[in-house]
Amino acid sequence: MTAPVQHEGALPHQGAVPAHGEQRYWPEGFGVTPGGVLTVGGRPVTHWIREAGGTPLFLYDSALIARRIEQLRAALPDRVHLHYAIKANPMPDVVNFVAPLVDGLDIASAGELEIALASGMEPRHISFAGPAKRDSELLAAVLAGVVVNLESEGEMRRLARLAQEAGRPAFVAVRVNPDFELKGSGMRMGGGAKPFGVDAERVPAMLEELGALGLHFEGFHIFTGSQNLSAAALIEAQDKALALAAALARHAPRPPRFVNIGGGFGIPYAPADKPLDLEAVGVALSARLDRLEMEIVDSEIILELGRYIVGEAGVYLTQVIDRKVSHGEVFLLTDGGLHHQLAASGNFGQVIRRNYPVAVATRFASPGEETATVVGCLCTPLDRLAEKITVPKLEPGEVIGVFLAGAYGLTASPVRFLGHPEPAERLV
Amino acid sequence: MTAPVQHEGALPHQGAVPAHGEQRYWPEGFGVTPGGVLTVGGRPVTHWIREAGGTPLFLYDSALIARRIEQLRAALPDRVHLHYAIKANPMPDVVNFVAPLVDGLDIASAGELEIALASGMEPRHISFAGPAKRDSELLAAVLAGVVVNLESEGEMRRLARLAQEAGRPAFVAVRVNPDFELKGSGMRMGGGAKPFGVDAERVPAMLEELGALGLHFEGFHIFTGSQNLSAAALIEAQDKALALAAALARHAPRPPRFVNIGGGFGIPYAPADKPLDLEAVGVALSARLDRLEMEIVDSEIILELGRYIVGEAGVYLTQVIDRKVSHGEVFLLTDGGLHHQLAASGNFGQVIRRNYPVAVATRFASPGEETATVVGCLCTPLDRLAEKITVPKLEPGEVIGVFLAGAYGLTASPVRFLGHPEPAERLV
Repeated sequence: MTAPVQHEGALPHQGAVPAHGEQRYWPEGFGVTPGGVLTVGGRPVTHWIREAGGTPLFLYDSALIARRIEQLRAALPDRVHLHYAIKANPMPDVVNFVAPLVDGLDIASAGELEIALASGMEPRHISFAGPAKRDSELLAAVLAGVVVNLESEGEMRRLARLAQEAGRPAFVAVRVNPDFELKGSGMRMGGGAKPFGVDAERVPAMLEELGALGLHFEGFHIFTGSQNLSAAALIEAQDKALALAAALARHAPRPPRFVNIGGGFGIPYAPADKPLDLEAVGVALSARLDRLEMEIVDSEIILELGRYIVGEAGVYLTQVIDRKVSHGEVFLLTDGGLHHQLAASGNFGQVIRRNYPVAVATRFASPGEETATVVGCLCTPLDRLAEKITVPKLEPGEVIGVFLAGAYGLTASPVRFLGHPEPAERLV
Repeated sequence: MTAPVQHEGALPHQGAVPAHGEQRYWPEGFGVTPGGVLTVGGRPVTHWIREAGGTPLFLYDSALIARRIEQLRAALPDRVHLHYAIKANPMPDVVNFVAPLVDGLDIASAGELEIALASGMEPRHISFAGPAKRDSELLAAVLAGVVVNLESEGEMRRLARLAQEAGRPAFVAVRVNPDFELKGSGMRMGGGAKPFGVDAERVPAMLEELGALGLHFEGFHIFTGSQNLSAAALIEAQDKALALAAALARHAPRPPRFVNIGGGFGIPYAPADKPLDLEAVGVALSARLDRLEMEIVDSEIILELGRYIVGEAGVYLTQVIDRKVSHGEVFLLTDGGLHHQLAASGNFGQVIRRNYPVAVATRFASPGEETATVVGCLCTPLDRLAEKITVPKLEPGEVIGVFLAGAYGLTASPVRFLGHPEPAERLV
């Protein structure tokens, strides 16, 4: 881990803002050419599109990913181990870039295990969570020597049997379903009945059985929620997670090597969203770690982040194929759509559709001239990338940029829907 | 087209109903072995799972698809041309099976064009709709000789240029955005401002230009909505679509070879859903065609159906990997999930989550013993296949069947989410 550096206090709200953009959140770190073209990684999007052979195209800016990790290192206590949750963006180039900058990787399938191992990350710093791991996945994890986050007593017993049959040690953590939640999360992963982890009150008995089964106890995994913008809520959940881990550690066969207190750091998607006060989280966590319970005083404290590391570093570029007017409303029809950006279309678990930040990447510096709805190329009314935004008057060939496309984009979308070609992805 | 045969008046609500199932809609045509295992295509699901090498597995029953087409032929007037909209299920085996049983195929991309051509369907009976067709797609359509459903004036001009450059004729229909809607549809495709088709009032001018550009006018495409269970609404929309086509035909360079009045026939997903009264639609359409307007009296009248043909013929099979109890609630954790069945999880444009018909395929005849929530293998609370259903008490290895999986299943789901392996698909 790097030493804490001076925190520059200027995370978001400092990026290039399109001249035609409404007052809303824009991720920082992007630029504009004198000709008004959005730049990613210091080069105009038109360059990257030429290089990739066309649109649609996902661009992930490695410098922005690195900067976000630096910001985390600067804000968080030195002893915190930072993990990257591959599920947010499993593109191998991204994982290979992130792996040396973080302390571990979190995976959710045998497919992600392969990607994680290929990055060169040490197996003991790879942990495998997931509520219904198949025998084949458990065995692959044992053979690779990664840590399995046990989601139930049944999974523990299957793993013990498989490890014994393979004649190999099995390294395990217990994923705990805590009695508290991360308040105000995009998705709640704790509090009440859940398919994830083991209810806290059953963990002591499980720890006992775990030792008897010959499994190597490594630590706890307590994940309480995701996509949270409230520092206060995160601070409270982290405090409770540590206290819970300490209480449970009393029942463990040995002191936990690590305590993974989850992630949940959100990024702002909508104009009303205030960016997370990362510094406040870091300060509170630092104070909390100074008074860490005896039972976990020597444990690695792991924060597991996905979206927060890569989400703002990505832009999805799609070309206008047609501009049409229907009953007085302007539609910009693009070669992209919800098959690549389901969440941006508002159709992935969202109750209310809100536009992602969207702008005209090839005319970023042009003032707004009309109101248009940006849709994809699919024959469904669900396929809307931006509802009634202000844009310059556009002809086919101009490129629309959908921001916040670094996490849960391509792999979280129905890419085969209607048989369109796959978009390109580039880490730049 | 086959001659009308006696309609048996017993489309749905006659299938096998699981002993543990609640009172809800079950698609017909499935059976049960004496041992209580669900059968598809006359064989137990366990047979198909062995043959496919495991779960998750999509099974599509060819006999049920054929029977549904027979029911349509029996109910609909003889002169109606039946098209299959590939988007509902583009698995090549399914398309190859359906193609000889219908009169045409509808496609939405160059990818679907390839599948359609490979089925042996004559190009003039393949029509290509889609709001943002790329130049490469338009050119592929011209070279293949299929009909392009024009979605805008801009697309018309691009197509004319591409066809001229290629020295090939271009066969076109005009997709009309009508001023009316298909009332009560799952998705509305007409009425008001839409990205699809050309507003009706602009069609006459477009038809004039179309002739001048040397495009071969073939007909009209008027699609007003989808997934509709009301015969009355469908009858009204079909009547209006025909009237609109007749009125527009006066401005056409020649009489339309065809009038595609869309589809929109729904299938019941929830207990409260009443199956579509197909006979009523057929009787009304027959009467309507007897008084068809002069301008379209010789036109093929096309009905374009996707979900209605294949939706009920499919079952998605997923194995229980773990059974766990959290705070008194039972969770059955499976090797499937929303990455294969996004709509069944309630996360594809649905506002309210409703269970699809779900049952225990390996214990279909067993009475219910407990209430359980069936979830997938993904680390997200969105991944629920059935909320609090009544099932026998299950151990790992039992197989859950999710019905209505024949349409908008695999290709409408984020299959790469979390890096799990692809499910198998079999037409049986």
